[in-house]
Amino acid sequence: MPPLVEILARRASERGTPSTSQNILVTNGAQQGIELIARAFIDPGDYVLVENPTYLGALQAFNYYQAKYVTVDMDKDGILIDQVEEKIRRHKPKLIYTVSNFQNPTGITMSVERRRALVDLAIQYDIPIVDDNPYGDVHFTPNRLPTIKSYGGDAVIAVRSFSKIISPGLRLGWINGPKEIVAQFEKVKQCADLHSSTFCQYVIYEFIRHGYLDPHIEKIRTDYRAKRDRMLRALEARFPTEVKWTKPEGGLFLWLELPSHMSAKELFPIAVERKVAYVYGSPFFANGGGENTMRLNFSCATMAEIDEGIMRLGQLVKEHM
Amino acid sequence: MPPLVEILARRASERGTPSTSQNILVTNGAQQGIELIARAFIDPGDYVLVENPTYLGALQAFNYYQAKYVTVDMDKDGILIDQVEEKIRRHKPKLIYTVSNFQNPTGITMSVERRRALVDLAIQYDIPIVDDNPYGDVHFTPNRLPTIKSYGGDAVIAVRSFSKIISPGLRLGWINGPKEIVAQFEKVKQCADLHSSTFCQYVIYEFIRHGYLDPHIEKIRTDYRAKRDRMLRALEARFPTEVKWTKPEGGLFLWLELPSHMSAKELFPIAVERKVAYVYGSPFFANGGGENTMRLNFSCATMAEIDEGIMRLGQLVKEHM
Repeated sequence: MPPLVEILARRASERGTPSTSQNILVTNGAQQGIELIARAFIDPGDYVLVENPTYLGALQAFNYYQAKYVTVDMDKDGILIDQVEEKIRRHKPKLIYTVSNFQNPTGITMSVERRRALVDLAIQYDIPIVDDNPYGDVHFTPNRLPTIKSYGGDAVIAVRSFSKIISPGLRLGWINGPKEIVAQFEKVKQCADLHSSTFCQYVIYEFIRHGYLDPHIEKIRTDYRAKRDRMLRALEARFPTEVKWTKPEGGLFLWLELPSHMSAKELFPIAVERKVAYVYGSPFFANGGGENTMRLNFSCATMAEIDEGIMRLGQLVKEHM
Repeated sequence: MPPLVEILARRASERGTPSTSQNILVTNGAQQGIELIARAFIDPGDYVLVENPTYLGALQAFNYYQAKYVTVDMDKDGILIDQVEEKIRRHKPKLIYTVSNFQNPTGITMSVERRRALVDLAIQYDIPIVDDNPYGDVHFTPNRLPTIKSYGGDAVIAVRSFSKIISPGLRLGWINGPKEIVAQFEKVKQCADLHSSTFCQYVIYEFIRHGYLDPHIEKIRTDYRAKRDRMLRALEARFPTEVKWTKPEGGLFLWLELPSHMSAKELFPIAVERKVAYVYGSPFFANGGGENTMRLNFSCATMAEIDEGIMRLGQLVKEHM
């Protein structure tokens, strides 16, 4: 739907990524963006370089094309950039996949220095970066960091989504990439499903055109920040000091590490019995591990539910330490 | 969206195809149904048996997986069934793909006898039939023919669509197939785009639940029948006797054959200059041919536009005979 595509190109341009309609393809959520990239770049046995842990849905899309993984651990500033070059040399990955802002599952954000360094490596070794960025607008600090795409230009395919800023049920996202790649993806998408729902595209277009989007993002930034704060305070109050967690500066998730002998998967059915749920972390690790980790969502529950849920979960963890 | 899936299963059951929710997968239009089937069944070089001509979008989906084609010509009762068995034996196709009702592009409908015979062959040689059926509800005779699926059961995957009976812009369709296949497709679809738009599914669910669908289908059947009649009369009046056309009993299209030395593709830019458009037929032939054919749509134009368009087109054809 050309007017929507033009709005997306204009908004990207205003934020440091000069773009035209030819750089944009509307997709059925970010997931279809990742799928189109996986289709185009991955042959069976090809390596993808990913953060450890990383977004499960991306792993599923890459797995379908029989990818293998080079994993790089993270600290509070994102991917451990010092390990990236050696791993690129050894495994020659076809893609570098990152969720640079408020990562799913950890909530970690890659620092500006590492963004620049990752782009430099990608250009030096001629490996496209996929910057999966559904949460970037939901930042709790006053300013967002410059995107990897704004540094890397055509070396980067940005995968974006309306799911976290308007509604996941509309199932719409977009990619912003080099125009030759976008033109190819458009043909592949036509074979796959002709095009994304025109009706949903109009809904989103009207929502943006009437000026609802930015105030809405402002509102969820405020709401989610307050909920993050509440969850962090509850964790401090209710969890033993052996448990560690991240302090995300945006997004929906935080990440919790139990003592290494504990299994978040084994605790899960007991937690559900007590009516508190989380996502255990091991499936987010491309090459295994992470049995003692879990992802907590702070955006969906009420303040009272956050307090109650963290209390129950803290109690459960203490009982099993 | 389970309530919509249940409605689709119930409607199929009422019409001769006993179905449960496990037989149904909601897709992004019929095109994604075809794409999922192509992904699952076609390896490079595999044959698909198709009518000649057949739906271009299906060819594009199969081409993506590097299919080859066995084509079988049609007469007014559909695929020439006597040729099917020998072609199955010679090429061992992985799929039989048919648009049995008011075919795109020809408007031809397969007879009941041939439906039964095709199912018998499919079962005998263990080759799934894909019955792409977006137009079946738009029949101009009082009763619809029993579907191929109602004869073939689990030997048939029916591909359906809301595009022709509610709106193409909602981009929703569904498949009705064996539950093991549907369960597999569901996983593949999850990798591809998680799920189809919940919002659009609710729109359709409410449309059906409030009883709007069947009266709407009744209305378009009446409208399109009148337009088909108008176009057939205009063709009789305006076209030379050397030109042949089909007389569809439903759907949106009729099919026109010019004398064999003429090229519908070459005439096309001249027709567009005179502001009358058609789709030239050659791309619908999987293995080439059909240069003298064209597809006409009668559902979209007004009565006056049909008269005017056919007059201009008839004049153009006469000038180039």
